[in-house]
Amino acid sequence: MAGFKHLVVAKFKEGVVVEDLLKGMEKLVSEVDVVKSFEWGEDIESLEMLRQGFTHAFVMTFKNKEDFTAFLSHPKHVEFSTTFSAVIEKIVVLDFPVVLAKAPA
Amino acid sequence: MAGFKHLVVAKFKEGVVVEDLLKGMEKLVSEVDVVKSFEWGEDIESLEMLRQGFTHAFVMTFKNKEDFTAFLSHPKHVEFSTTFSAVIEKIVVLDFPVVLAKAPA
Repeated sequence: MAGFKHLVVAKFKEGVVVEDLLKGMEKLVSEVDVVKSFEWGEDIESLEMLRQGFTHAFVMTFKNKEDFTAFLSHPKHVEFSTTFSAVIEKIVVLDFPVVLAKAPA
Repeated sequence: MAGFKHLVVAKFKEGVVVEDLLKGMEKLVSEVDVVKSFEWGEDIESLEMLRQGFTHAFVMTFKNKEDFTAFLSHPKHVEFSTTFSAVIEKIVVLDFPVVLAKAPA
């Protein structure tokens, strides 16, 4: 599946418990069918010069752009976005059709 | 495969031909065995407020952190990094063990 990706790179405000936020995010993706897969990670290796203060990446994959658009306006996503916006210090979001240039063996 | 990801979010300098750069990147990942998969995309949907000027995301997946570390010091990666550094206006890099919270069906 190449599909369409919603990539969020974030730095959270001081004191934010990311585990609690992740529970909400996992609940969201489990309840919304158009989210085909959800992966996330916390940076452990990048140089501060390259990381620019960001700590977490979240990647959701959809079948196509239409499914992603449906997700954006889904009430559960709208609700979660409000929670998420309140705890981030900075963010970068990219939404793109995926080009799979080297496929897993 | 959950694995370990190397995520690069970039904005290129004006006039850079991203297609040429991608050819170099595809050659690199095809020649270096530890790169298990390589996906990329150009943002088409995000709001400028969220995109922050960034236009492209590149995601390489490795079996584990050790393979990623081997990639970093691989002569072909070192060589390509020099080329890449010369054409970017800004960059965010995150390197993280992947948590697969919702797996593709």
